[in-house]
Amino acid sequence: MRLLEERILRDGKVRDGNVLKVDSFLNHQMDIKLFGEMADEFYRLFKNDNITKILTIEASGIGIACITAQVFSCPVIFAKKSKTKNIAGNVYTAKVDSFTHGGTYDIIVAEEFLTKEDRVLIIDDFLANGSALTGLASLVKDAGATLVGAGIAIEKAFQPGGEELRAQGLRVESLAKIKSMSPEGIVFC
Amino acid sequence: MRLLEERILRDGKVRDGNVLKVDSFLNHQMDIKLFGEMADEFYRLFKNDNITKILTIEASGIGIACITAQVFSCPVIFAKKSKTKNIAGNVYTAKVDSFTHGGTYDIIVAEEFLTKEDRVLIIDDFLANGSALTGLASLVKDAGATLVGAGIAIEKAFQPGGEELRAQGLRVESLAKIKSMSPEGIVFC
Repeated sequence: MRLLEERILRDGKVRDGNVLKVDSFLNHQMDIKLFGEMADEFYRLFKNDNITKILTIEASGIGIACITAQVFSCPVIFAKKSKTKNIAGNVYTAKVDSFTHGGTYDIIVAEEFLTKEDRVLIIDDFLANGSALTGLASLVKDAGATLVGAGIAIEKAFQPGGEELRAQGLRVESLAKIKSMSPEGIVFC
Repeated sequence: MRLLEERILRDGKVRDGNVLKVDSFLNHQMDIKLFGEMADEFYRLFKNDNITKILTIEASGIGIACITAQVFSCPVIFAKKSKTKNIAGNVYTAKVDSFTHGGTYDIIVAEEFLTKEDRVLIIDDFLANGSALTGLASLVKDAGATLVGAGIAIEKAFQPGGEELRAQGLRVESLAKIKSMSPEGIVFC
């Protein structure tokens, strides 16, 4: 998606440790007009798939997921990163490795919100090693729901997550796929 | 806002410890169509205030803030709850007491995204003791920006946050104000 690639080239900053800083428009300050364009693109890609739920993970996936859900006219569920006292009852859980914070954490979704009848589109801001996406996919599988695919804003295609998940049969659509990046520049696939 | 009150009466569940569980439509599963109606109401209340930024806090404020920002045609900033390696440089910080998790945490916003020229509307899902809202307001003040007001989905008016902040001169608009609640029922102001 050219608009997103141009925005990454203009405002993205590459930091040590394969960090792409896009916090001026994607995951700290959020450009909602851009999110609307991204949502339209996800709709073009998945409009014939009868999506009933969009699933994402807190925190930075939520904005894109909500704007996208408007176009699909469906609810959003965001997986939570730890068990709070506001979630009672039965939950689906998975373990996720954190790229940003290091370590491992649990993600949870209340069972009542994912059912066998659901056709689920996962939305997230980044795909790198694929740990979050793998965890979200396992929640959908545990629920017996149909996982239609994943819509990702930025895929770091030089990390293995995207290719591994596609090889497992998951449809992964990334709006910007980065082939390589360094402080000198960013190259898209 | 009658639509939100009716939804709380229909789907909200009161749990021990003054917990109102609204995770089927507000803060785990999110009813984006309802968020659109709430956004229209926030717009009716604040449309003449020349809002340039909406500020919220991760995670459950983000969805409402993004849908509201569409109506105001402005960006959203979400305050982060801990310092990650993706935020470099100077930040505004405040301490917040957590009602849901217990304990205290830091919230941060990168300085570059809040400026003296900004006119800020804070959006959040809940207002109870007012700790999150007080913290967010102090970030706006530290930036020298203008705090126009706060738009809240659900205010627990039997807890002191809302009245304290209004007494300090902050304009707080809550779409549903709960006077009292128990497992037997919920009464709105």
